Amino acid sequence: MITTANIKNGVNVDQLVETINHVQQDPSLAKFEFRAKNNWIDGGHCVTSIQDFYGVGQEHPVRKDNFTMEADHVEVLLGQDQAPNPAEIVLHALGSCLTGAMAYHAAANGIEIEGMESRLNGDVDLHGFLGLDPEVRKGFNGITVKFKVKSDASEEQLRALSQFSPVFDIITNPTPVTIEFEK
Amino acid sequence: MITTANIKNGVNVDQLVETINHVQQDPSLAKFEFRAKNNWIDGGHCVTSIQDFYGVGQEHPVRKDNFTMEADHVEVLLGQDQAPNPAEIVLHALGSCLTGAMAYHAAANGIEIEGMESRLNGDVDLHGFLGLDPEVRKGFNGITVKFKVKSDASEEQLRALSQFSPVFDIITNPTPVTIEFEK
Repeated sequence: MITTANIKNGVNVDQLVETINHVQQDPSLAKFEFRAKNNWIDGGHCVTSIQDFYGVGQEHPVRKDNFTMEADHVEVLLGQDQAPNPAEIVLHALGSCLTGAMAYHAAANGIEIEGMESRLNGDVDLHGFLGLDPEVRKGFNGITVKFKVKSDASEEQLRALSQFSPVFDIITNPTPVTIEFEK
Repeated sequence: MITTANIKNGVNVDQLVETINHVQQDPSLAKFEFRAKNNWIDGGHCVTSIQDFYGVGQEHPVRKDNFTMEADHVEVLLGQDQAPNPAEIVLHALGSCLTGAMAYHAAANGIEIEGMESRLNGDVDLHGFLGLDPEVRKGFNGITVKFKVKSDASEEQLRALSQFSPVFDIITNPTPVTIEFEK
């Protein structure tokens, strides 16, 4: 007997349903911890390594690849522009997360998506970062995401799917960050 | 006459002071817009291109490099693990931004930093993303950053420097995100 995997939008729907069933049977499987290690090079230039994580009840010490990502600043902000800057990296995380969330939740709901692309922009007033005006925030005043989605789904449906994005939640709602300094 | 650039922590302090003076003379120079273009591959696999930005009163259409970054999901979350996932990319953005902000603001304050590294972790309960419990948030419940900084500065000073980080602000405070769907 030949069986065909039930793939929609690049997502294995059978495995997705199985994952949901497992989590419903054992809620502790839903606990994940993601990790990163950042090393300063100089100025605004850094390199981050991504490797291990915890999830579905166990440690995952190795990954397919030892992922490294750099960050730097643009030259007009005194960097050497050797990599995207942290604000641009936030846009990368948000665009990827919204897109992935839509692909997964569309698959779970039987909605086919043929293509997706998005343009993101975020505006900043440097009076905040430079410490020139404490009333001006240091981060983005706002982010706009313009999606082009090739699908029969309505705009309302697509918008509902996008709301499952974890990074959309992290950015639009306050997320506590604890900073510790070790000797 | 030989002049030596005033470099501290990899930051050109003379240029930093000059930048602050320019912004104080013409506040419009402080307006920046960063941009990203995201293309879906399949499932949770995406690629982001970073190129142009607006800042110091003009468009900057080209960069040193045409930066591209990928995102994917880990295999237990039905991805192919070809790149870090969006939640890990948020940790990369935060670690890099805190570190860069500390290097820049330390330089501006005459504080020397010899080395910095940090370990970041963020915990997620998948009941949120999977839509199993509307009371559980989809993003990180919290992020912890553990810094090791080689410097004579006190912990209190380092903490104050870190608070200038734009990504720290984006994550800890609500940042409005507008999503538009175009035909």
